[in-house]
Amino acid sequence: MSKKPLILITNDDGITAPGIRALIGFMKELGDVVVVAPDSPQSGMGHAITVDNTLYVRREEIDEGSQVEYSTSGTPADCVKLAKHEILDRTPDLCVSGINHGSNASINVLYSGTMSAAIEASIEEIPAIGFSLCDFSWKADFSVLGSYIKTIAKSVLKNGLPTGTALNVNFPISPIKGMKVCRQAKANWIEKFDKRKSPMGRDYYWLTGEFVNFDEGQDTDQWALDHGFVSIVPIHFDMTHYKALEQLNHLNSNNE
Amino acid sequence: MSKKPLILITNDDGITAPGIRALIGFMKELGDVVVVAPDSPQSGMGHAITVDNTLYVRREEIDEGSQVEYSTSGTPADCVKLAKHEILDRTPDLCVSGINHGSNASINVLYSGTMSAAIEASIEEIPAIGFSLCDFSWKADFSVLGSYIKTIAKSVLKNGLPTGTALNVNFPISPIKGMKVCRQAKANWIEKFDKRKSPMGRDYYWLTGEFVNFDEGQDTDQWALDHGFVSIVPIHFDMTHYKALEQLNHLNSNNE
Repeated sequence: MSKKPLILITNDDGITAPGIRALIGFMKELGDVVVVAPDSPQSGMGHAITVDNTLYVRREEIDEGSQVEYSTSGTPADCVKLAKHEILDRTPDLCVSGINHGSNASINVLYSGTMSAAIEASIEEIPAIGFSLCDFSWKADFSVLGSYIKTIAKSVLKNGLPTGTALNVNFPISPIKGMKVCRQAKANWIEKFDKRKSPMGRDYYWLTGEFVNFDEGQDTDQWALDHGFVSIVPIHFDMTHYKALEQLNHLNSNNE
Repeated sequence: MSKKPLILITNDDGITAPGIRALIGFMKELGDVVVVAPDSPQSGMGHAITVDNTLYVRREEIDEGSQVEYSTSGTPADCVKLAKHEILDRTPDLCVSGINHGSNASINVLYSGTMSAAIEASIEEIPAIGFSLCDFSWKADFSVLGSYIKTIAKSVLKNGLPTGTALNVNFPISPIKGMKVCRQAKANWIEKFDKRKSPMGRDYYWLTGEFVNFDEGQDTDQWALDHGFVSIVPIHFDMTHYKALEQLNHLNSNNE
């Protein structure tokens, strides 16, 4: 008897966002789907977890279909922890997160709730993929992404991923020329704060900024996206800068 | 004329926490200090930034002294962005974050607001260090850490750090045997959710868990801490898993 793979789906835009609804549709073709996603938008939450507050979990029925859905009051990373340790009775074969509205390429991987869910799954040794579309519109057309998303997900279900790896997959605006496995570009935000005055006379700020790619390599996610390719970056949670270890030897000491 | 170094201080426990007050005291011996820190605790915030909400900044006078202090309504990463792009008129020579109450070693670096501030500074090319003490007590004795913190900070002020590097420094409970430069241990939390019922009859959860070190290496931060040493891990924000790139070659495609 062949058992269908169990696929956990989450996101950071909230359980009713068009991106996750599209992703549920694609994944139902590949396995049994359980959705555990935030009850409200969590963009820019990075790898936040809820340590000083309570967590609620609610069974949901949003679209018709075989998927089982839960919303939570937590962050994307909380959703994965709740799914693995409380909601599901077996470890998922795959965790997919998204489809995010907006790019999570290059430095955005650090700020991304979508990717933090995928990284959390990789910490739990669940093969994981975060999907994002470089289009902030709530009316973005996700249907053209289906064949790519299913190709990548099928490959991961079949071949697995190196232990502790999550894939950061970003889609350019169509037409799509193909897919490229690449590294994270050295690019970041040059921040500008938009200073305003509240009706009560208090100064406040909005974070705004310009995204600048400082990386001239043609092997980066940003290059791929700028040239019409889907970018696929393998991500791991070991943040050690190994090359810097030796340069810091002078800090070693022993009082004994 | 020699100019004193400019040192930016932030944290995730909030501007009035004992850990940051101790850190301000140590850093005033090394340079001009500006504090930009959250107005309330932000533990477990990971690399969250405020994208969908306004930010307030308020000048504060908490302890006497030459330091200039601001609280913000933002996350630790927001504080660094606000300091660099709005509050300060020159780039700091060093950013220090902490002293955190509780360990940020091994996998905790991902969940840590303290370290996200340091990593944000490293993205902005400011040499940065996050300090944490493996003692959750609000009455923890930070005074014994002073000589170590000043040694590390002086070294970074003098020698700099490799571009894009932040140091994740964790202190064991005393006595301290020395300092070790090390890699991030492969350790994580085995989560348990504490399920309770609210006075209104609704189920809710607290995230709890047990920290387990799966890493037998003696070159890790967790090993150092378990053996009485200060752990110093160089961290970088490039999360690419380079070793996995080749294994994913089969995903490359070109429609043209």
